[in-house]
Amino acid sequence: MSTNEKKVAVFRKEHFNAAHRLFNPAWDDQKNAEVFGKCSNPHYHGHNYELVVQVTGTPDPATGYVMDMKVLSKITAEEVIERFDHKNLNLDTEFFQKLNPTAENIVIVIYNLLRTRIDAKLELKVRLHETERNFVEYPA
Amino acid sequence: MSTNEKKVAVFRKEHFNAAHRLFNPAWDDQKNAEVFGKCSNPHYHGHNYELVVQVTGTPDPATGYVMDMKVLSKITAEEVIERFDHKNLNLDTEFFQKLNPTAENIVIVIYNLLRTRIDAKLELKVRLHETERNFVEYPA
Amino acid sequence: MSTNEKKVAVFRKEHFNAAHRLFNPAWDDQKNAEVFGKCSNPHYHGHNYELVVQVTGTPDPATGYVMDMKVLSKITAEEVIERFDHKNLNLDTEFFQKLNPTAENIVIVIYNLLRTRIDAKLELKVRLHETERNFVEYPA
Amino acid sequence: MSTNEKKVAVFRKEHFNAAHRLFNPAWDDQKNAEVFGKCSNPHYHGHNYELVVQVTGTPDPATGYVMDMKVLSKITAEEVIERFDHKNLNLDTEFFQKLNPTAENIVIVIYNLLRTRIDAKLELKVRLHETERNFVEYPA
Amino acid sequence: MSTNEKKVAVFRKEHFNAAHRLFNPAWDDQKNAEVFGKCSNPHYHGHNYELVVQVTGTPDPATGYVMDMKVLSKITAEEVIERFDHKNLNLDTEFFQKLNPTAENIVIVIYNLLRTRIDAKLELKVRLHETERNFVEYPA
Amino acid sequence: MSTNEKKVAVFRKEHFNAAHRLFNPAWDDQKNAEVFGKCSNPHYHGHNYELVVQVTGTPDPATGYVMDMKVLSKITAEEVIERFDHKNLNLDTEFFQKLNPTAENIVIVIYNLLRTRIDAKLELKVRLHETERNFVEYPA
Repeated sequence: MSTNEKKVAVFRKEHFNAAHRLFNPAWDDQKNAEVFGKCSNPHYHGHNYELVVQVTGTPDPATGYVMDMKVLSKITAEEVIERFDHKNLNLDTEFFQKLNPTAENIVIVIYNLLRTRIDAKLELKVRLHETERNFVEYPA
Repeated sequence: MSTNEKKVAVFRKEHFNAAHRLFNPAWDDQKNAEVFGKCSNPHYHGHNYELVVQVTGTPDPATGYVMDMKVLSKITAEEVIERFDHKNLNLDTEFFQKLNPTAENIVIVIYNLLRTRIDAKLELKVRLHETERNFVEYPA
Repeated sequence: MSTNEKKVAVFRKEHFNAAHRLFNPAWDDQKNAEVFGKCSNPHYHGHNYELVVQVTGTPDPATGYVMDMKVLSKITAEEVIERFDHKNLNLDTEFFQKLNPTAENIVIVIYNLLRTRIDAKLELKVRLHETERNFVEYPA
Repeated sequence: MSTNEKKVAVFRKEHFNAAHRLFNPAWDDQKNAEVFGKCSNPHYHGHNYELVVQVTGTPDPATGYVMDMKVLSKITAEEVIERFDHKNLNLDTEFFQKLNPTAENIVIVIYNLLRTRIDAKLELKVRLHETERNFVEYPA
Repeated sequence: MSTNEKKVAVFRKEHFNAAHRLFNPAWDDQKNAEVFGKCSNPHYHGHNYELVVQVTGTPDPATGYVMDMKVLSKITAEEVIERFDHKNLNLDTEFFQKLNPTAENIVIVIYNLLRTRIDAKLELKVRLHETERNFVEYPA
Repeated sequence: MSTNEKKVAVFRKEHFNAAHRLFNPAWDDQKNAEVFGKCSNPHYHGHNYELVVQVTGTPDPATGYVMDMKVLSKITAEEVIERFDHKNLNLDTEFFQKLNPTAENIVIVIYNLLRTRIDAKLELKVRLHETERNFVEYPA
């Protein structure tokens, strides 16, 4: 029996906790409060972000792996968790000085960080849960 | 700094509780019982329905939002939750007088209700969990 | 090495789906609506009830079991699931003709049904989840 | 059939998102960093706090309720969610100016806020989940 | 009101518990240990595998079903659960004598077992959770 | 500002994956099969065990901690996870050579391993989930 021609997707779930506020620096505080409501509270609030990294390809016949999950977890730790865990996304990272840290923008930043580290022949998709009820996926 | 060309999907989870029975009015009770088993119990049974609304598009550069989740939640409340929550789907709604309220048919009805309220340039998909072990998605 | 003198609690989770309405037959419809709101909708609504049965005792040295989970699951199926699953609690069961099927009253009924079938030297407790956010436990 | 003499516990789950840092103002930054590690990051981090409020008593024979969950949810919203949701616990609340906002101290503060609003004949217990893997309960 | 032209996906979740070890018989023990680490422990380890079977098609107008979930559950029990539940995947099944039982290879085997039993006009996809943090999907 | 007199319970959740079979060496294979069914399969099966360690005491006024969760997690890793993760409980550990590795016996062994490492003035309780539907707690 041999492995199939079709591709397999593998998923790895990771977590980080961070503070943020939604804020467009081109707007004054009043406009930010109107658009983002309590999510723009000047002293920040925070979330337990849950991250699901999806890598798609053909399993290697020798290992049966699309990609070693231990390696995927290590890359995610180096590129994402070490940068964002227990941090203030607006103040402690270089990414959200000018870019509003909405779930949409965070998931694009995470995708770009991981994309450089994952073999180009593998497809990459990232899902980010901001709360139990709000989550995003990129690319859609 | 610029957002990526690719699209982002945003998801919002909501809940409602409802009673229903599976029933094809073109069939007699015996035939309904044969096909639908205990799901056709004449006095109804019920579920905690869990609804996940997925909207896909390009984040607005000013807000970083594909769509404001507060607006998506409000539209879902007006179109779905107010109509279905704590209701008998067969008796208390206009949709399932003649249409059998299977998970498949409910998710199509919910999609059609939401589609008219979501900007046409955004893609829409709906997932509906009937139990922890049975769920449906539309369009597939 | 021998097992410890202290007692161990074992838990078994089961599920059933049912319709109900909150209703005190001593009150008229208006009073029921005032007190129970949408939970008193005359055409019923429903839930995926999640049941956790807890039995506490000393493990049998020969089996290492407080109680065989297969037996506990079978008893729960016979006493609870067969009576309540895919049923209307108000109309299809003998228990809630006059007793209001609140989560509190349902969990007491389930406890009493199971208590007669579980060895008297074992302690029994029942938890019932009505929704993800509302649940009850008896005896407290 | 009548309700049982034994007490029933009812549980209501609520959520809030907040930023915090662990910090003892009697210590300098270096000592705080040694003791609390990344949890003491000066720019704060955050969590999706999940709160479970447990109230124990005898069901009212007229309603079948230990306590109306709608009332319990409203009290929790007024006393806890409005104060803490989308806030910085250290800066935006009066409670953690001098008291370190560990999960232990937060759950005690929440208990004390709710205790004044719940009928004295009912027992109260509060569980607070800080992450999926860390949670606390008071009183134990 | 009629059902829509677009397709609906239905999902059914099932479970099995099994032991396995990752092992490529073309390699010696040292090489297997280097590549697979503790997952290659010679005495096996195990998982609670969670399986989600997804079937996509157009609902039958008479039943409102894409496929009867009771039938899908029965087929999954016969083809997958009876073969794998409480088994050693390497020793007790014919599939992983020479094929390494990685999540990727297991999900392909399960897909092939189910594909022969599901109507060819319906699309099939299988998701397999090996742990809470590692899962796979086929075809991707 | 002072912490309350009552005690706080803190909980830490950890995971390990292991193989086992239920087996009483005083019985022959037939008797073991009769009593334990498929759980006694000679080639083992396995689980994703989920462990919740509960420690109860009074928060330290200086730290606000009952016990540092980082320390509790480290002790659990050293005493439990390193011993049991990716192991065969019957063959690879000293504890279940003669003691049947039921959930009840495993949770008692884990409690005894942790008890020696946790300050005697703190109460200890352990919950072990063998599957999503079966779990145990010790002491009860």
